[in-house]
Amino acid sequence: MLSQPTTVVTRRLLHLTQAVAAAPEQPISRLMSDALKNPGLISLAAGFVDEQSLPCQMIEETIARLLRNPMRGRQSLQYGLTEGDANLRLLIAQRYFAGCHDQHAANMVLTAGSNQLLHLITQCLLEPGDLVLCAAPTYFVYLAMLRDLGVDAVSIATDDAGMIPEALDQTLSDLTAQGQRERIKLLYLVPYFDNPAATTMTIHRRQEILQVLERHQTGGPPIALLADNAYRDLRYDGVDEPCFIDCGADPALTIETGTFSKNLAPGIRVGWGVLPEPLRTGLLRRKSVIDFGSPSFSQAIVRQLMLDGLLDDHLKGSLLPTYQDKRDAMVAACQRQLSAIEGVHFQIPQGGLYVWLRLPPEIAASPGAPLWNACLHRGVLYVPGELCFASEGAKIQRNTIRLSFGVQSEAGISKGIELLAQAITEVRASGTTSCC
Amino acid sequence: MLSQPTTVVTRRLLHLTQAVAAAPEQPISRLMSDALKNPGLISLAAGFVDEQSLPCQMIEETIARLLRNPMRGRQSLQYGLTEGDANLRLLIAQRYFAGCHDQHAANMVLTAGSNQLLHLITQCLLEPGDLVLCAAPTYFVYLAMLRDLGVDAVSIATDDAGMIPEALDQTLSDLTAQGQRERIKLLYLVPYFDNPAATTMTIHRRQEILQVLERHQTGGPPIALLADNAYRDLRYDGVDEPCFIDCGADPALTIETGTFSKNLAPGIRVGWGVLPEPLRTGLLRRKSVIDFGSPSFSQAIVRQLMLDGLLDDHLKGSLLPTYQDKRDAMVAACQRQLSAIEGVHFQIPQGGLYVWLRLPPEIAASPGAPLWNACLHRGVLYVPGELCFASEGAKIQRNTIRLSFGVQSEAGISKGIELLAQAITEVRASGTTSCC
Repeated sequence: MLSQPTTVVTRRLLHLTQAVAAAPEQPISRLMSDALKNPGLISLAAGFVDEQSLPCQMIEETIARLLRNPMRGRQSLQYGLTEGDANLRLLIAQRYFAGCHDQHAANMVLTAGSNQLLHLITQCLLEPGDLVLCAAPTYFVYLAMLRDLGVDAVSIATDDAGMIPEALDQTLSDLTAQGQRERIKLLYLVPYFDNPAATTMTIHRRQEILQVLERHQTGGPPIALLADNAYRDLRYDGVDEPCFIDCGADPALTIETGTFSKNLAPGIRVGWGVLPEPLRTGLLRRKSVIDFGSPSFSQAIVRQLMLDGLLDDHLKGSLLPTYQDKRDAMVAACQRQLSAIEGVHFQIPQGGLYVWLRLPPEIAASPGAPLWNACLHRGVLYVPGELCFASEGAKIQRNTIRLSFGVQSEAGISKGIELLAQAITEVRASGTTSCC
Repeated sequence: MLSQPTTVVTRRLLHLTQAVAAAPEQPISRLMSDALKNPGLISLAAGFVDEQSLPCQMIEETIARLLRNPMRGRQSLQYGLTEGDANLRLLIAQRYFAGCHDQHAANMVLTAGSNQLLHLITQCLLEPGDLVLCAAPTYFVYLAMLRDLGVDAVSIATDDAGMIPEALDQTLSDLTAQGQRERIKLLYLVPYFDNPAATTMTIHRRQEILQVLERHQTGGPPIALLADNAYRDLRYDGVDEPCFIDCGADPALTIETGTFSKNLAPGIRVGWGVLPEPLRTGLLRRKSVIDFGSPSFSQAIVRQLMLDGLLDDHLKGSLLPTYQDKRDAMVAACQRQLSAIEGVHFQIPQGGLYVWLRLPPEIAASPGAPLWNACLHRGVLYVPGELCFASEGAKIQRNTIRLSFGVQSEAGISKGIELLAQAITEVRASGTTSCC
C-alpha cells in the first residue's frame, strides 16, 4: 500500500468576482432546505404545481404528432431564432390580446421560463441604484432578483383589488419631492391572482393605475409598466380581465409577460413577453450573447399543443377542476380551523395557487419566530409573508403568511391547515408571539 | 371615415441602461442576416447541425418510455433542481471522466445549452477589465461574450495541435513583466476539434499547457482553465483523448464543459459543466436568481436516452457516418478545387464540423472585402476567420476562413467549395485582394 504523502499541499482556489462573492443565499432557499430535512413535512410553501394533473399522456401524444411531421419535427430539434418560434409567438398573441396580434407577435420574445425574461428586462432597463415600485406584498423571487442586481424596491400599499392608485400616486409624489424621481424606472405588477396576495385587478383599477402613472411620466425618465401575467389562465370563478395593453396602456412603455409553467408544465418551461422598442432589440442582443435562444423543442411542444386546441382541453378538463377543488379544500379548512381565532383574515381567491393569511398583529410569522418553530415542530411549512415586502415603502407585515394549495392533496391541505391552527393557538396561549 | 388626428403626440420610449444601449450587434449576426436575404445561398458558415440525421424517431420513442413511467414522467414536467437532474449528472460524469464520478457529478451544473454556462462562469470569475487567454483563432461567440462583459481577450499562437505551450509561456511572461498578471483569470480552450481551427490537443500537448500554467499560477490570482469540450463526441478518425482533469489538471482550478447540442440535438439544448468550489456555489446562487434551473424535461429526455444506451447507437449508427461523409466531401472538394491555388492550406480534421482554410497572405477574407463580395455574388457564404481572433495578442489572420460541413448536403458542399474557388481565382486575377 502506498503511504500518504507527508508534504502539505497549499490548495489554491479560484477567486469569485466581488458581486458574486457577496451575493447572499436567497432567504427562501435556506428556509426550504432547512425545512426539507424533515421529509414528513406538509409543505404549504412550495410554489410547485399539482403533480397528478401534469399531462403526461397529452404531451406524449403531442410530441408524437410533432416528431412524425418530418419538417416540423426536425426543426424542433435544430437551433431556433433568438426571439423564439414565430408561429408560437402568434398563437400566444392571439390567445392573450384583443387585437394587433401580428404586432404583438413581432414584439414578443420567448425564454426558458418567464423568470429569465424578468431578469433580462430588469437588467436592460435599470442601473444599480435605480428604483422599482411594486405591491406590498409582491413576488419574493423578483425582490431577490432586484437585490442581486443592486436595484432598490419600494412597495405600495394594496387592498383586495391589488395596488391602491392613491398610494401609488402618493409614493410617486413623495419620491419626486425627495428628488428621487430620476431613479424610478419600473412599476412591477402581478395583476392576475397575485403571488402572494391572490388579488386580481379589475379593469377599473387597472385604468386608475394607468392614469396615475401617466400623470407622473413627465416628471423624469419614462416609467415602464411590467405586468407579470403568470397566473392568468388559472381562474376558477368569474370572467377573465383584459391585460394592461388592452386597458389602454401606452404600448411603448408597457411590457406584458406570461408563462406556460403554471397552466401546462414547469418542466417544459416556456415563458414569453411582449416588449416595446428599443427594449426588444437591446434585450435580444443580450440574449444572443448569453444563449442565442431558448430550447426550440420546448417551444415546438407548446406550439403543437395550442395548434391542436389541447391547452384549453387540459385547463377545462383537468387543471382548473383540480385546482378549484384544492382551493375549496384550503378555504374550507381555513374557515373551519382559523375563523374562530380572533384577528385572522383571508380572502377567497378567484384563481391562482395561493391564500394570503393575515394573523393578529401581535403574531409574527417570521423565520425563526415562535410560530415558525411551532409549525416546523408540528410538521407544516409556509412562506413567511414578510419575505414578500420590499425593505422600503409600505410597512412590512410580519403577521402574514403565504399558503399554497398547488402541491398538496386535499387531505394534505386540510391536515396542514389544522396543524397551522394548532400552532397559532399554542403560540397565542404561550404569549411568546414576537420574532426572536 | 374618421379623419386623422391633427395633434402631434410626442412618443415616449423607454431608456435602456448604458451597457445595453452601447452593446453592438454581433458582427456575425449582421453578416448572416445580410447574407440570408439571398435564399439561394449555399451557407458554409452556419454552425447548425445536419438536419437529416436529427433523431426524430429515437427521441419520440425515448419520450414515450419516459412519460409512460408515472413517477419519472411527472417529475420531468415539474420544476427541478437549480443544478439539474442528479441521475443525468452522474451519467455524464461516467461517460466523460476516467474516475471520481460521484465527485464530478456533485460538482456538475446543467444549463440550457453550454453557452449559458460559459456566460455564467465568465461572469462569476472575471471583473470588467480582466483578461482571458485564448487560442488564435478561437470560438467567435465566446469572444463576443467577453466583449459584452467588458473582459479583454489575448490570443496565443497555435499550430496543428492547438495552442503552442511556448507561446502561452511567452505571453504569460510578457504580461507579467508588463504588470498585467493580476488581470489574468482564465485560459479558454476548445481542446477537441476546435471551433474554428479543427485541431485536437494530444495528451502530451495538454500536459505541456498544464505545466506552463502551473509555473505561472504563483505570480498572481489563480488562473482557471476552462475546457469547452463541445465537439468531443464527433470524432471520425483516431481515438478519444482524455479531458484535462484526466490529464492531471488541478481540479480546484479546472472547469470542464460539454453539451448535447452537437452529438444529439441543439433544440433540446442541454449543456453541462464540472465546476470547482467556490465557483459552483457562487454560480448556482446567480442561476437561482436568473431562472432557478434549466428545463427539466430536456434533461429527462437526455437521461432516458443515455440510460437506454441510445446515445452511442445514434452516434455510431447515424451521426458519425453522416458527418464523416460530409467531412470527406468537403476535404475532397478542397483538394480538387483549391489545392492548385498557390498558398492555400488546410488540414484534414479528425472530427468536429469545420475546415479551417488559410488563403495566400495577400487575400483578405474580411467582411466587405473583394473575396467576401465575390462569394456573396456567386452565392456562397463563409465565416471570415478574422472574427475568431482577439484584438490583442497573436496577429489577426485576415486571410483565413471557417468552413462548416454541418448543414449542407455533400452536393451542396462540393458546389459551395467550387464557387469559393472561382471567387478566389477571380479576386486573385483582378488584383483587388485587400479589404475595403
